[in-house]
Amino acid sequence: MKEIHYFDNAATTRMSKQAIQKYVSVAESHIGNPSALHQEGLKAKTLLEDLREKSAHLLDVPSSAIFFTSGGTESNALVLNHLVWKPQKAEIILTNIEHPSIKEYGTLFRQLGWKVIYLDAPKGFVRSDDLRKALTDKTRLVCCLLVNNVVGSIQNIASLVSVVREKEAQTGRKIHFHTDAVQALGKIPFSLTALGVDSASFSAHKVHGPRGMGILYNTDASVTALNRAGGQENGLRGGTENLSGIAAMVTALEEAMREQDTNYTHVEKINILLRQRLSFLPILSPTELCSPYILTLSVKPWPSEVFTRILYEKGFCVSSGSACSNNAKQKSQGVLSAMLFHPQDAKSSLRLSFSAENTLEEAELLSQAIETTYRELT
Amino acid sequence: MKEIHYFDNAATTRMSKQAIQKYVSVAESHIGNPSALHQEGLKAKTLLEDLREKSAHLLDVPSSAIFFTSGGTESNALVLNHLVWKPQKAEIILTNIEHPSIKEYGTLFRQLGWKVIYLDAPKGFVRSDDLRKALTDKTRLVCCLLVNNVVGSIQNIASLVSVVREKEAQTGRKIHFHTDAVQALGKIPFSLTALGVDSASFSAHKVHGPRGMGILYNTDASVTALNRAGGQENGLRGGTENLSGIAAMVTALEEAMREQDTNYTHVEKINILLRQRLSFLPILSPTELCSPYILTLSVKPWPSEVFTRILYEKGFCVSSGSACSNNAKQKSQGVLSAMLFHPQDAKSSLRLSFSAENTLEEAELLSQAIETTYRELT
Repeated sequence: MKEIHYFDNAATTRMSKQAIQKYVSVAESHIGNPSALHQEGLKAKTLLEDLREKSAHLLDVPSSAIFFTSGGTESNALVLNHLVWKPQKAEIILTNIEHPSIKEYGTLFRQLGWKVIYLDAPKGFVRSDDLRKALTDKTRLVCCLLVNNVVGSIQNIASLVSVVREKEAQTGRKIHFHTDAVQALGKIPFSLTALGVDSASFSAHKVHGPRGMGILYNTDASVTALNRAGGQENGLRGGTENLSGIAAMVTALEEAMREQDTNYTHVEKINILLRQRLSFLPILSPTELCSPYILTLSVKPWPSEVFTRILYEKGFCVSSGSACSNNAKQKSQGVLSAMLFHPQDAKSSLRLSFSAENTLEEAELLSQAIETTYRELT
Repeated sequence: MKEIHYFDNAATTRMSKQAIQKYVSVAESHIGNPSALHQEGLKAKTLLEDLREKSAHLLDVPSSAIFFTSGGTESNALVLNHLVWKPQKAEIILTNIEHPSIKEYGTLFRQLGWKVIYLDAPKGFVRSDDLRKALTDKTRLVCCLLVNNVVGSIQNIASLVSVVREKEAQTGRKIHFHTDAVQALGKIPFSLTALGVDSASFSAHKVHGPRGMGILYNTDASVTALNRAGGQENGLRGGTENLSGIAAMVTALEEAMREQDTNYTHVEKINILLRQRLSFLPILSPTELCSPYILTLSVKPWPSEVFTRILYEKGFCVSSGSACSNNAKQKSQGVLSAMLFHPQDAKSSLRLSFSAENTLEEAELLSQAIETTYRELT
């Protein structure tokens, strides 16, 4: 069988050995429901709160702001959903480069009578001026992701937040700022406090943790669950806590944060090597303010699906889209259009995404495979 | 350290060795995102659909009706949430003995302008006549759980569904019937097709599977996600599929279904033994149409929390409530009140819940501990 070279780490990563071991050990040792008041329940509750403290420490925030969820999608949903409770319909600002788990909420909120405004991101970046113009005294929520999952551009969240805070000061009304930081955690350095956001979403399986696990950072007490049942996660997220999954996630996060600088340097080398080797192709990922973990280029005039299929046959796992859904390609094209790239580049996009497990040697093999494929087709 | 005797299996069960092993083996062998189109993605997708087929086979339903979720709470939420999309506000019928993950939705839907009717369940059972009287031509959804989590009473869902179908025939309007079957799966025999429900919820961790995993059975195409993003689970549930968790859940379900009759007989013996030994106390669980996995009694005049605390100190894990939330006791009292039990019985309720791991010997020890505690307090 052909050796597989995995370059689709923005879609999902391999769960680390340590995270798997932690999952097993907690599943074996902690059998109680953390909501139960007996010994096994209290033992589970103690571990749960210890894990919350550890997560808070890793993110440098108070533990009261940490909520464990079933993943990035649910973390995003918790913030969006709370607006369903609002008796007065008002306005939401999203960007056209959000992950679909946020972007597609526009349809629901329009149905519910809200005004939803989408911001473009020319060449990959949402502009403060565009946000300023879109804000009104009816704006209740602004969402902008930290690292875009299609090209890797790092948004200037602190600047966008300051625009929102100015508006708040003018109108005296709270505007919740949420950032989807799924592609940032454990990869690029950031401070939630310095960014100044009200909430942020994280996913474990993007950094070698378990799937089905995430964190919502939230400091806005007005965010409440659709279903006000279950005391779990301070009332924000009902359901028996997945203690083994949470423990495995925290183990993966500890590893990722500890190795963040080392991994960044390693992945940056891979990124630079591929940018050099593939300089004959248009690179869609920005050269500055971009996560080295994602490199998106255009193989025009060839459609992504034709090009990627040949790479798959050669043993390379890459993405023609964000791979977060079955219709990922179309969604990614929408993101690239919102970045004002030429439609042909959008249709021919190829996303390479890395982890510390990738080697420079297989990056060389990948660059050769892309170049050969391109020459063969031409 | 004191030996622990675990009698809180309706809250959560120990994850089985086989389920843990399956989790590990899939985490190690299937690293791709099922939505990705490369080899690792297709390999993951193939396993995902194989697991869906297996689940469908176990539940004897078409695989197109199986949706993997993060647990019973989310399965319930998916059904309730879809009404948020409805432009016309209408009526919902819930029961007062639902799990909080359904019952508390009443608050949201009233806020949204819906009429919400709650049915009582005298002595543990929702009555067809009460449902018939509550149905109107505006009813869009009826929820009634299959096995109540506080006392174990098995509802006559087939009869309730037939009342709903009669009304549908009269009005020509669809009424969705949902059952929360979390406490039934792998424990008591039932056929979803024979029950005739439109949807049903299941949770893995109640039958020695992983936490954070569940199934929604749904045949109603009008049920759609709040966020119409992500193609996962046929558009009903976005987010990268937790393949290891799903695989571990299916392994646990296979074990539970294979051993269902044997386990039922074993647990029934434990239940009968405890009913005999504790016959000096009022038993709140019905003698007929009751799951043997749950036995709830009253230790009046002693408050649950006083009594359970003494049992905890003696090494017995039991429940004073449903333990599904931190304010479980209050919620359970509400359920018991809806069953028209005396308030003193509700305040003094003690829930014992079993699994195949419990032995007759430790059931004897439990009965002795309860009797001794009761005599000591008196």
